[in-house]
Amino acid sequence: MNVCVVGCGAVGSLFAANLATLDDVEVWAYDLAQAHVAAINRDGLRLTGAGEVLSHPRATSDAAELPPCDFGIVATKAMHTSAAIAATAHAFADGCVATVQNGIGNEEVLAEHVERVIRGTTFPAGKITSPGVVQWDVKGDTTFGPFDAKPAPFDQVQLLADACTRAGMPTKAVEDARGPQWRKVIFNAATNPLGALTGLTHGRVCEHPPLRALVTKLVDEGKAVAAAQGIELDSDPEELIDFAARPEVAYGHKASMLQDVEARRQTEVDYLNGGIVEFGKRFGVETPEHAAIWALIKGMEASWTQ
Amino acid sequence: MNVCVVGCGAVGSLFAANLATLDDVEVWAYDLAQAHVAAINRDGLRLTGAGEVLSHPRATSDAAELPPCDFGIVATKAMHTSAAIAATAHAFADGCVATVQNGIGNEEVLAEHVERVIRGTTFPAGKITSPGVVQWDVKGDTTFGPFDAKPAPFDQVQLLADACTRAGMPTKAVEDARGPQWRKVIFNAATNPLGALTGLTHGRVCEHPPLRALVTKLVDEGKAVAAAQGIELDSDPEELIDFAARPEVAYGHKASMLQDVEARRQTEVDYLNGGIVEFGKRFGVETPEHAAIWALIKGMEASWTQ
Repeated sequence: MNVCVVGCGAVGSLFAANLATLDDVEVWAYDLAQAHVAAINRDGLRLTGAGEVLSHPRATSDAAELPPCDFGIVATKAMHTSAAIAATAHAFADGCVATVQNGIGNEEVLAEHVERVIRGTTFPAGKITSPGVVQWDVKGDTTFGPFDAKPAPFDQVQLLADACTRAGMPTKAVEDARGPQWRKVIFNAATNPLGALTGLTHGRVCEHPPLRALVTKLVDEGKAVAAAQGIELDSDPEELIDFAARPEVAYGHKASMLQDVEARRQTEVDYLNGGIVEFGKRFGVETPEHAAIWALIKGMEASWTQ
Repeated sequence: MNVCVVGCGAVGSLFAANLATLDDVEVWAYDLAQAHVAAINRDGLRLTGAGEVLSHPRATSDAAELPPCDFGIVATKAMHTSAAIAATAHAFADGCVATVQNGIGNEEVLAEHVERVIRGTTFPAGKITSPGVVQWDVKGDTTFGPFDAKPAPFDQVQLLADACTRAGMPTKAVEDARGPQWRKVIFNAATNPLGALTGLTHGRVCEHPPLRALVTKLVDEGKAVAAAQGIELDSDPEELIDFAARPEVAYGHKASMLQDVEARRQTEVDYLNGGIVEFGKRFGVETPEHAAIWALIKGMEASWTQ
């Protein structure tokens, strides 16, 4: 089986490195960060922390090098989905493409370029500490399901889920993956920007009672937007938030949005809080706290330019 | 007339420097920043920008040096009011003490230490650029009025207002100074923390439509809390906000809270958004946006410590 991970940042690297430990899977990693690509090809891709892995996916920044692939796993930042899939779609002419990205709306973008799309949500997190080396901060489950508008065949969804599970990334294939997806979007939108605005890790956001109260308001708005669409959350985002705050889980984890802010990179807020606000408008649900947080993060991004 | 400015930061320095230009006023500046005190005593206190002033108040960090004063003008950060007035109260045994500080609740603290208190609000702003030198960013009016619980005699309020006006700081004496005070608290609470959270100047906050919409929500909550107390605002804080955003007024001004955050100093948010939330609770008015902003700034302050 050929799998191409499209966007080999922290989360993409977790998939690429783990899948590349399987004898029956050939893994390609497509990424524009040339130092990371060169390091992977020279020394392999190393994960440390929650799991220790060293494996040897083939990495490239040149989409033309990619062979035809059975599966794509898109793991770019949400704002780079369109460019990344436009460049690599040829490799998936006969394959299925899954997203494990943050936010709402990535499947729709993939479906503009490829025929068989897998809705996906993943909870593991980490950060690139140096080219070729990724700190694996937190383990977690992944869920895949056919994307309604351009669905991948369910047996293919199961095949990819099975490979990920065997590789050490526990993954379920389900018919409707919107529940976990919205649970994660709500989780991220309710916590990541608070870390980004304050500089606090996930655990410290959660142990600060006024911030924890704000998290709950954001969760409640998100739940109302999901409910208005008829989406049944697979479990309460509140539980996940408190679970992640445990010292042995992700107390000290800097949310990816905080990592972005510290590096003055554009964040994914448009696809998180912005997505919830937009879906709220479409389904008649008020989301004032998400609108406020969205505005603050966009303002922060604006401050980095004259 | 003897006047002691208690807390000679940016705003205190504007009062001290301007009042010290009057022949009939002797000005003392009490401040704990020894480099600033030394520079003032050596080279005088210099204002540049909106006005050019060089004058020679007497500065000290030792409250015991202060002579009996007719007036105090307290200009410390709100969280330092109690310590500052406890140290200097002896100088005002026969005098009146005004506050020109930000936020809600300063008069109450002064009244625990001195007998005649003047409620005050001032709009000029600036920043200390080096010891003894203050950049005067924006001119503006000051309002004084007797503090209900321990009022200064109205003729004394008028005397101080007159001196400030003659010195180039236009000041009105009024019977009820709560209107301007709440207008400024609402102005500050609706704009300063947004600058502090995003890094944007006042003007850039105002020209960012989603942030400007958040400003209006914060203003509306503040107006509701003022109205519930029977306070009549002297004018709409919205007008002041748009006025201040003009290039020739304070477009490029970094709010004092942003200056605090950049220097990792504790902010006055407890006395601004926190004050509005507390008064809201007392008077049965919901203030969810101020609560959210308060939580975010407190979280940011918490991030500066382990």
